Amino acid sequence: MPGNRQWVLKKRPVGDIAPGDLAFVDAPLRPLEPGEVLVRNVYLSLDPTNRIWMSDQDQYLPPVEVGDVMRGGTIGVVEASRSDRIKEGQVVNAGLSGWQTYSIVHEAMANPVPTLPGVPLTAYMSVLGATGLTAFFGMTDIGRPQPGETVVISAAAGAVGSIAGQIAKLKGARVVGIAGGPAKCAWLTGDLGFDAAIDYKNEDVGAALDRHCPRGIDVNFENVGGEIMDAVIARMNNFSRMPLCGMISSYNSTEPVPGPSDFARVLMRRILIKGFIVIDYLPRAAEGMAELAPWVLEGKIKWKAHVVEGLENAAEAVKRLFTGDHDGKLLVRISPEP
Amino acid sequence: MPGNRQWVLKKRPVGDIAPGDLAFVDAPLRPLEPGEVLVRNVYLSLDPTNRIWMSDQDQYLPPVEVGDVMRGGTIGVVEASRSDRIKEGQVVNAGLSGWQTYSIVHEAMANPVPTLPGVPLTAYMSVLGATGLTAFFGMTDIGRPQPGETVVISAAAGAVGSIAGQIAKLKGARVVGIAGGPAKCAWLTGDLGFDAAIDYKNEDVGAALDRHCPRGIDVNFENVGGEIMDAVIARMNNFSRMPLCGMISSYNSTEPVPGPSDFARVLMRRILIKGFIVIDYLPRAAEGMAELAPWVLEGKIKWKAHVVEGLENAAEAVKRLFTGDHDGKLLVRISPEP
Repeated sequence: MPGNRQWVLKKRPVGDIAPGDLAFVDAPLRPLEPGEVLVRNVYLSLDPTNRIWMSDQDQYLPPVEVGDVMRGGTIGVVEASRSDRIKEGQVVNAGLSGWQTYSIVHEAMANPVPTLPGVPLTAYMSVLGATGLTAFFGMTDIGRPQPGETVVISAAAGAVGSIAGQIAKLKGARVVGIAGGPAKCAWLTGDLGFDAAIDYKNEDVGAALDRHCPRGIDVNFENVGGEIMDAVIARMNNFSRMPLCGMISSYNSTEPVPGPSDFARVLMRRILIKGFIVIDYLPRAAEGMAELAPWVLEGKIKWKAHVVEGLENAAEAVKRLFTGDHDGKLLVRISPEP
Repeated sequence: MPGNRQWVLKKRPVGDIAPGDLAFVDAPLRPLEPGEVLVRNVYLSLDPTNRIWMSDQDQYLPPVEVGDVMRGGTIGVVEASRSDRIKEGQVVNAGLSGWQTYSIVHEAMANPVPTLPGVPLTAYMSVLGATGLTAFFGMTDIGRPQPGETVVISAAAGAVGSIAGQIAKLKGARVVGIAGGPAKCAWLTGDLGFDAAIDYKNEDVGAALDRHCPRGIDVNFENVGGEIMDAVIARMNNFSRMPLCGMISSYNSTEPVPGPSDFARVLMRRILIKGFIVIDYLPRAAEGMAELAPWVLEGKIKWKAHVVEGLENAAEAVKRLFTGDHDGKLLVRISPEP
């Protein structure tokens, strides 16, 4: 058996993730039990929700316990198998198997990654993985944009937001993205075909929304929370919908995060707000993939991966999600692709 | 033609409704146009939303203009008719025909009141009127309580809340009401069959919710907003629903009313929040009446009217909605029943 290297949660971050909150350690690998496979992890997905898991706030999964391997989604290659279903050499999605070079996973949790022509492995960590399904179900099941409606996406250049916006475009909506900096905004309106982009670092978001959404806002795909959310809600129409996907502006906060500053508007405009987590939709994953895969193959949905080399850099890299200093879905390459 | 008496909005209240905000005036009645009927109003419905209409805050109908007759729902008797459809002597729901002794209403807005055996006229201003439909659609279309689930109702002894809770009971849920004072709480658990009632004036609401909702809360029928709402949301379960019917705690406020103090919970627990107004459901009114009417006839839904005599007392009476100093659906008797 090879040795393993892991990121372990040493203490819960207070505010921003600080040195010493996570430790990179060596660990032995135990022998496989029947039904288990040994996965050499190739890619680790870094996601805003990682910060939630590090905390002990009320959350949708148990927090990572102090002393445990940090939770994270990986794809890897099966190097040893005691499963009848999963063979050595297979590339599998290993689920939330952790920030580590090797994971021991029960066959029930190891899902062979499909092979689509011209689609790189990183796609299954992004547009054809949990990221894409998050965007798909949040937009189509809760947002439900109708042709001609106006959709606003916050954190629009992020992994989820960029796909959510393209899905809304494919459904016939006008799409306005809010992102940080001119480069991200140019990507949204240039490459991705958003109708407009608002640079929240350099523009008055409210005034820009007034300009770009003259008929108000029908869907707010909410990734951010806080003041940007308030500016959007203030312009939401009667019977508009707000899939609540995340509130990244607050994940490093040590205080509870307040809801809309003007809640009466939710009543007066009869707004629907619905929190959702992609794991709720995993039973319907095939339905999402059936729509997403053709769009990806036909080039109708574009996406980017920002790959950081080396598991040893994961704890530093995850901070980029909160500064915006990344260009596409943030991944760590742990070991070479097969 | 008889003369008319009206309550006119003289200036918009700041905070509580004050003397001089409304004025009781004499007004002439103009002749009827073709298709119109003259309604002698019998009952005026007083509702928390009246206070919203007096303000110029963002709202679901245009505000009442200063100088205009105060808006309000009435039932009355047709005293003169230039309609082929509505005859003299008919009792009609005259819609939002205003705080006045007589209303001139187009036949399209005058709906004959049905006659059910043993059902008094006041019922059509409450359980079989907009009040009952508000409770019905908020609970069944948004709340959707399942058998065995726990439903919490705020302002539970109010006109809407008391019916919403009984509907949830009829749907097989456990129902916990929050109301002000021991008499109202005794009515909820005694006469109405609520499983528990919490007296927010004399109990710690959070502790009482913990005691009465050991399996958390699946539906929060929200009428109040503010701290009581926060205490309920803090105990809402995964995939729970929150029909947002009103926020009476804030209607006299001069500031925007904030949303949930801990909005992350909406995400983590995947809560659905949906603002609604009964007028959205008027196209489905028949569907609601078809369920409500048998329940009323069979005594399965109980309700009370609190009738204030004399239109001249309307401006003083409406304040009772905000102090809780009324016992059942608040109505003003403007003239004798036919």
